[in-house]
Amino acid sequence: MNSPLRLGIAGLGTVGAGVVKIVRQKANLLAARAGRPVVITAVSARSRDKDRGVNISDYAWEDDPVALARRADVDVFIELMGGSDGPAKAATEAAIAAGKDVVTANKALLAHHGQELAEAAEAADCVIRFEAAVAGGIPVVKALTEGLAGNDISRVMGVMNGTCNYILTRMQSSGLPYDVVFEEANQLGYLEADPTLDVGGIDAGHKLALLAAIAFGTRVNFAGVTLEGIERVTIEDINHAADMGFRIKLLGVCQMTGRGLEQRMSPCLVPASSPLGQLEGGTNMVVLEGDNVEQIVLRGPGAGMGPTASAVMGDVMDIARGFRLPCFGQPAAGLAPAKPARTTTPAPYYLRIGLEDKPGALAKVAMVLGEAGISIDRMRQYQHEEATAPVLIMTHKATRDALEAALADITRLDVVDGTPVALRIEAT
Amino acid sequence: MNSPLRLGIAGLGTVGAGVVKIVRQKANLLAARAGRPVVITAVSARSRDKDRGVNISDYAWEDDPVALARRADVDVFIELMGGSDGPAKAATEAAIAAGKDVVTANKALLAHHGQELAEAAEAADCVIRFEAAVAGGIPVVKALTEGLAGNDISRVMGVMNGTCNYILTRMQSSGLPYDVVFEEANQLGYLEADPTLDVGGIDAGHKLALLAAIAFGTRVNFAGVTLEGIERVTIEDINHAADMGFRIKLLGVCQMTGRGLEQRMSPCLVPASSPLGQLEGGTNMVVLEGDNVEQIVLRGPGAGMGPTASAVMGDVMDIARGFRLPCFGQPAAGLAPAKPARTTTPAPYYLRIGLEDKPGALAKVAMVLGEAGISIDRMRQYQHEEATAPVLIMTHKATRDALEAALADITRLDVVDGTPVALRIEAT
Repeated sequence: MNSPLRLGIAGLGTVGAGVVKIVRQKANLLAARAGRPVVITAVSARSRDKDRGVNISDYAWEDDPVALARRADVDVFIELMGGSDGPAKAATEAAIAAGKDVVTANKALLAHHGQELAEAAEAADCVIRFEAAVAGGIPVVKALTEGLAGNDISRVMGVMNGTCNYILTRMQSSGLPYDVVFEEANQLGYLEADPTLDVGGIDAGHKLALLAAIAFGTRVNFAGVTLEGIERVTIEDINHAADMGFRIKLLGVCQMTGRGLEQRMSPCLVPASSPLGQLEGGTNMVVLEGDNVEQIVLRGPGAGMGPTASAVMGDVMDIARGFRLPCFGQPAAGLAPAKPARTTTPAPYYLRIGLEDKPGALAKVAMVLGEAGISIDRMRQYQHEEATAPVLIMTHKATRDALEAALADITRLDVVDGTPVALRIEAT
Repeated sequence: MNSPLRLGIAGLGTVGAGVVKIVRQKANLLAARAGRPVVITAVSARSRDKDRGVNISDYAWEDDPVALARRADVDVFIELMGGSDGPAKAATEAAIAAGKDVVTANKALLAHHGQELAEAAEAADCVIRFEAAVAGGIPVVKALTEGLAGNDISRVMGVMNGTCNYILTRMQSSGLPYDVVFEEANQLGYLEADPTLDVGGIDAGHKLALLAAIAFGTRVNFAGVTLEGIERVTIEDINHAADMGFRIKLLGVCQMTGRGLEQRMSPCLVPASSPLGQLEGGTNMVVLEGDNVEQIVLRGPGAGMGPTASAVMGDVMDIARGFRLPCFGQPAAGLAPAKPARTTTPAPYYLRIGLEDKPGALAKVAMVLGEAGISIDRMRQYQHEEATAPVLIMTHKATRDALEAALADITRLDVVDGTPVALRIEAT
């Protein structure tokens, strides 16, 4: 049996406790699979005495994660503290400087500092692994970086924030409006301390930026992700979309185009019968498309102690087995700058426009769309009593630029009430 | 740049031609990702002159795959000939004896000789990789062996023969009987030369046996797979199942129980709304369940040039990147014998029983089931004109042994016509 792989864990929240549990309970299984023992030597967290349901008394304790990262008896620094800067960044840098491999679940850290950390790690002959940072228990980083290494990736898309998907599917099933379901989710503890990270699409945007870097061999460019959260999705839009055979999802999409790299995180319509459309609750799904493999769909729990710890351990086991791969699948120096596409790939759109009940109102809207070169696929107007009623339009493929221009003109029409809603319909 | 990885390909059918195409078209991409060039040096096939749509004139030619496997300028022997014995086995053994790594798409070879080949490879310090042998383009071997390495796997199940799934979903959508759809599939070229490999469940059974070995750390035991094909699935059963909210799939299931290892390949009912139930046409799906990760679902194309070549190249790239893992995830000598469970885990069953239209007929059936301790969840009998009509029963959980005994008694009842049909309902 070879020498043990020694882990130092910084951060003993849910995921950290889950990792401790696995290492303690599965010592034999892990050793058989890795060909060497996998052990924890030291841990660090905010409070030493908190009851976490796991025994940490066998491990050396460090108050300071930076000190933990530098310990001579640590081979792999496991960063589970979170946060794009502060202690997480300092300790990760210290670990690399000390020649340690790093396993992290920290999407924010890598979305903001991935390139510099990857370069530092490669210079120090260390690896950084981050399966747990994207889509929880789903081994999607591995599938994309390794399994599909023989493909030019054309598109990656996914539902990667379980809380948002919970809110949207709960709205649909209950008929309750956004505010009520948001509050429910809050009561259930599903939301981050800063809920904008979830419902604003930031957390999912971090994940998308990491997948884009792997998929297209580009430098992580979180600033290049166009972010739109779910705060403005109404129960009416969810119901209208359902009537027409669609579901609304907070969908992340990245694709490389002749115009540059598109990275979008926004509420989109997807067919109700598609795997993405059928995804309910907190489950995550990532769709990988390559020129050879066509389409692979991965589905699984996006968060939670067990699933996230499983992803951390997948990375640990790879290191234990001697797999050493650059952070984003190829040497960091070779990653191309991600030039953001100024416009998005044309797509059909769902439009909801508040229209006054006057003769010729619809004709005016249709004329503006027609002049902008946007043709209408389907249209619905429901029976109504009010002076203003929504008209629902599915367009044929249109560019976002043409659509924005048309919507600006439509908003100015005297028969139009309020601001029109426009949601992209993503082909699945 | 490091030294090139040199491939020798034996078998230039669809998949072999696909691999040649990728290596030729993506030289730069592969080199960037692997950190070294990946090149083909020699090939072998039955006919040298056949037009395969790819240029093989740059490569050395060998008539004999064994000679190819031994060439000094080959680092990785890629076996795409197929067949559990004969040239595929001889050439694979020769490659290992000559110290070459092996990448194969040959499920039959490994299902029958996996253990001895794995032992030989480890003794020679070679690796054998077989992602393309299971579920086409889906990187499921990688997900299970590596991504979920921190889990005790509880169950693996999947639809792993696209032809069978095509036949079953086509029967459902068209209402046509098995024989007609089978002939359609034959005309479309979907069936193997020996169709029993597909519709008899043998091909899918090979794949299941390989996944079971990885999942549970046991020696491949294809003989331990209970095989039941789709030849006896009727359009009536498909329709009845649909009426009750189910789909019939050729489902492979393996799970480790206190009674030993269960490996079943058989037509099962699954909920129509589940990912497995929604799987249509030739697409494959594998469901992986572990104690930490809960449930991961992988979906993708199960065959075809691009997807299968993608899987081969995933293995090639791992080798190019220096990943070296025992064939079944841990050293072959440490794999435990797979003791087959003599009985299967209790499950609900779907029963179709031809019943004569006589007073008390149903009571007799119900009594036999009751005496066997099998309780009825739901029952349906449709209006009918004939003297005999099918009664459909969904049981609560029952053991296969109790069910078989009850069915034998039911078959002997004077009010029962023909042999009852019993299909397992698998929880998803």
